[in-house]
Order: sequence, then structure tokens, then C-alpha cells
Amino acid sequence: MSERDWISRYFAPLATAPGAAGLRDDVAELSGGDGRLIATTDALVEGVHFLPDDPIDTIARKLVRTNVSDVLSKGALPEDVLLTLGWPNSRPESEIAAFASALGDDLETFGARLVGGDTVRSRAGLFLSLTLTGRCLCEHPVRRSGAAHDQDIWVTGEMGAACLGFEALQRGECDSPHVAVYRVPRLQPVSAAHLIANHASAAMDVSDGLLGDASALGEASGVGMKLALEEIRFAGKATDIDTMLRLATWGDDYQILFTSEKTRRETILADADDAGVSVARIGETSQKTGLSITWRGEAVNLPETLGFEHG
Amino acid sequence: MSERDWISRYFAPLATAPGAAGLRDDVAELSGGDGRLIATTDALVEGVHFLPDDPIDTIARKLVRTNVSDVLSKGALPEDVLLTLGWPNSRPESEIAAFASALGDDLETFGARLVGGDTVRSRAGLFLSLTLTGRCLCEHPVRRSGAAHDQDIWVTGEMGAACLGFEALQRGECDSPHVAVYRVPRLQPVSAAHLIANHASAAMDVSDGLLGDASALGEASGVGMKLALEEIRFAGKATDIDTMLRLATWGDDYQILFTSEKTRRETILADADDAGVSVARIGETSQKTGLSITWRGEAVNLPETLGFEHG
Repeated sequence: MSERDWISRYFAPLATAPGAAGLRDDVAELSGGDGRLIATTDALVEGVHFLPDDPIDTIARKLVRTNVSDVLSKGALPEDVLLTLGWPNSRPESEIAAFASALGDDLETFGARLVGGDTVRSRAGLFLSLTLTGRCLCEHPVRRSGAAHDQDIWVTGEMGAACLGFEALQRGECDSPHVAVYRVPRLQPVSAAHLIANHASAAMDVSDGLLGDASALGEASGVGMKLALEEIRFAGKATDIDTMLRLATWGDDYQILFTSEKTRRETILADADDAGVSVARIGETSQKTGLSITWRGEAVNLPETLGFEHG
Repeated sequence: MSERDWISRYFAPLATAPGAAGLRDDVAELSGGDGRLIATTDALVEGVHFLPDDPIDTIARKLVRTNVSDVLSKGALPEDVLLTLGWPNSRPESEIAAFASALGDDLETFGARLVGGDTVRSRAGLFLSLTLTGRCLCEHPVRRSGAAHDQDIWVTGEMGAACLGFEALQRGECDSPHVAVYRVPRLQPVSAAHLIANHASAAMDVSDGLLGDASALGEASGVGMKLALEEIRFAGKATDIDTMLRLATWGDDYQILFTSEKTRRETILADADDAGVSVARIGETSQKTGLSITWRGEAVNLPETLGFEHG
């Protein structure tokens, strides 16, 4: 059974608070706030989410960014951080200083502050868990479920750089420029939260592969998702469809997928430009549910697996 | 270097928000709230904080209670929970249902609700991290630093049952009544939060050994802590001083240590009785800093180690 199945079967029934959204969204609304206060938790495990020899400062930044990505994608600004650090005896303590320094630097970049946490000994590899709160720029977080049919589908940044970086590392090509993106996700600036809050009908961060995440957003909203491959910006020089599909299903992009009324096209482009956020309009929603992809108007068969699940 | 030293050296400098209290307290005030909204994170690691063959439902309850204990001890009621579950491939998935069921049951007992989290694969043992928010009954959490000299020192419940339970397990005496307390801390009812909010000048939960925690509270408040051993309620039938000192330094008690004006003695006893909270007055604060203990008026030498650090 996959982790997603565990959550829906065993944990979702416990999540009865309305702000929990049945654990089917990226963040929860905290009951202590006014609807605008949200929280998310993302964990990283050595050997699963990062490689044992990844530099420790990149692990700290990846931890921050996987969480910040969730908050920005909901139209919210990062606030407070609680950190769980599970440190193995096998890892030199000298790395803790480098970890803390990179953590502090990255938190500052995104306007978040460390307020608490727990440090424990790990009996095996390094594990990290971070809880991040955020303040919504709208009255509530932008959910996955708000898309209507006949809206535009947008995505920020480019897809697949992390995939190419991981593959380069597997081949021993450590100086590939994509390696840095695999290790430290390149998020959009925090101003992206304003773009989402102002314009998005539904949004989520792209972390498990664009196709799988698009499918999830469509399902949550009850709409179909039609994507045009040629409109998606891919890392590297992807020209063949197989490569594009590989990059669109691997994950670790940490970009923002969102939907919006078609009337807002020009405003979104202008606002994104002002905010220094790179966006591309990659498709539209439809009444008929399900995911479909085209290449220059021709239907493309969906790959067997739409997204990545960290096994 | 100990975990406490890591925190003060590497992470406390990052915790510049006033609500973080320099990471020297049990909870943080979240900046998204009104001063009353707090959060804490506690993690449990297999082989460090629980035994590999502890029943899975007891591990879930221990996870909930170590966090609830922090919140109650600050005069606050538990609210929202974000859970990180690191599940090893070696542990049967059938245990997840039992874990979730016990988690849900215990959250309900303490009035908390699951709102989010992350489930990941662990490459080694089970690890768990829980972030719990709470709502303070006063304007702010009751800190460790509020004690003045010439106040009473109180503690709830009895000390050392977890220690006796752990020792019984080591001897293979699984049917000792203390084993259940080692596995599932016996917290005071949530009404204890009202007692703390109404009366305590300083408070913290006793989780690393009474003597070490009393010393920490005294240090945070800048007062001395004089404890009378004969007033402390110990589990089992501790009659000799060596046993008492062992039970007062082992940890995992999850009771509440607090200080209060001497004029409140009778009110505290009456309110505790009404709330179903067991309390004992075990000493008083002094202007001269440091920890001292007596047995029927005679000074007792402090043990070499005042508290427990999970290695």
C-alpha cells in the first residue's frame, strides 16, 4: 500500500476538523487562527529524499524549500518553523553548525523564523521534519478544489531540472548545472504568493510530477485537465515526447500549478512580470474529467505512471 | 556534545522571534496568533524513546502525551496536530491501523485534532514527530522563567513510575503495573491547564527527571530551588534516599512542576481537588540560586547527574 493510501485509509478519518480538508490538501488551517493561519509538515529521510553524500547545507535548504513551496502555492507567506532533527551518531557533529547556518540563511530568504523543535538521536540515517506556519493573503488558503471548467491552467518555472540533476549524479556527472537544482529546489520568489492569492481559483505545488499533480488538482476540483506539452517549459533541451513525459512525471520541481479565469490572462502575465515570477499557460480545464495531454494538437498517450512516489 | 548544547549553540541564535523564547522553553508562541496560540514539537525514535517491541498502540499514545504534557504545563489546552510518521519497511503495515486508531483515541481524550502531516519511508526504525498547537488560558503561556524567591514549589502526580516500569522490562517482568506507565505516560487531566493558568508563576513539564527539571526552572527564573524529598510522592515504595534520587533523576514522568505564591496554598489544594488533579507541595524557592535537597530537614548530597538525556 502506498503512503497516499495509508493517509486516506487510516489517518483521514481522524481529520474531522474543517480546516484539515480531510488531509487531501497541502496545508491545514489552524483552529487557533482566523482562517488565514495555515500549517504544513514535510519530512526528508536520508536515502529516500536526499542522497547520503549530498552536502549538509543543501539538505537544510531542501527541507526549508519543500515546506515553503507548499505555503506559497496556497497564496500565503511563510511565518514560523518548528524543526525536528534526527541526527545519527555516524554523522560528524561538525556538520550541525553548517546545517544550522544554511537553515537560518534560507529561512531568512523566505521570511520565516525558527521558533521551536526537537533534536533527537537517530539510530540510522539523518531524518528531518519541519512544520511551517503561513499567513494567507486571502481569507483562506487557495485549495486544490477550486477550479471550474473552461479555466486556464498555469505553471511557474520549468519542469524536470531536478530529474536531470538526479540522473547526472547517477552517472557521476557532479558538475551538471541541474545537480544544484536537484539538491536545492529553485523556488519562485515569495511574491508568487500574491499572484496566487490574487488570481488562482485552485493551486498546489508541483512536487510529485506535473502530470500526477495536475491529475490530483483536477480530481479535487471535479474538472478535466487538458495539457499542451509544447507550452510546458522543460529543463535541458527536451525535444522528444518521451523525454518530456519523463520530466513531467519525476517530481521534485517545487513549482506552482494553478488555474484561473481566462479573462485574467493579461493581468496574470503583467503581475507575474512585476513580481519576477516566471509563468506559462499550459492548458485548460474541461467539464469532462480526467487528464489528457496533447502535442501540437495531437493526443498523446498517458504514461503508465503519472507521478513519483518516494518509495 | 549533548542535544541541549547543540540547541543553545547552533539553533538558539536563529530563534530571534520573541515568541521563540530563545528555544529555552517548552513551547513557542506562534506569530500568527494573538499571543495565546502556542506550538510544540516532540519526536520519538525507536530504540531511543521506546523499545522496538513496545506495542504500537502504546507508542501512538506516548507520542500524543509527550506533546500534550508540554501544552498543559504552560496553562494551555491542546488544539491541532501535524504528524510525521517515518515507517520502516520491516514493520508490518497492519500495525498502521492500530497506530492510527490509538492516535485518534488519545487525541480525542485530550481534545486535540489531527489536521495534517507527512508519512515517509524510514530506512531503519520507526520514527515519529508530532507538532501540537495549544490555546493558552491566560494571555501568554506560563514560562519557566516566572518564579520569584520565597514561593512554593509544587509537582503533580507521582515520580518514577516510568523508571520502575523500564527497569521491570529490563528484568523481563512484563506484568509489573509500572510497565504500562513507562509505555503510556499517565498525564493529569486537561483541567490541570486551568490550575496552572490560574496559579502558577512558572511551570514546565517534568520529562527529564525532577531534579534536573527543577534545576532548569530555577535557572530560567534566577531563583534557588529547595526540595524536601519526604514531600515528593514516589512510585513504588521508595523508602531509602538512593532509590528516591534514582526515581527523581530518571525522567519520563510527564507531570507538571510549578511555582506559586505561598498565599495561594489553600486555593491551589481546593482547585486541584475540584479539577481531579493530584498535587504535592515539595519545596520552596530561595534568593540564593542553585538546587538543594533535604530529607526531613537534613541536607542531602546531590547526585552526580540530575536528569536524563536520551542518548
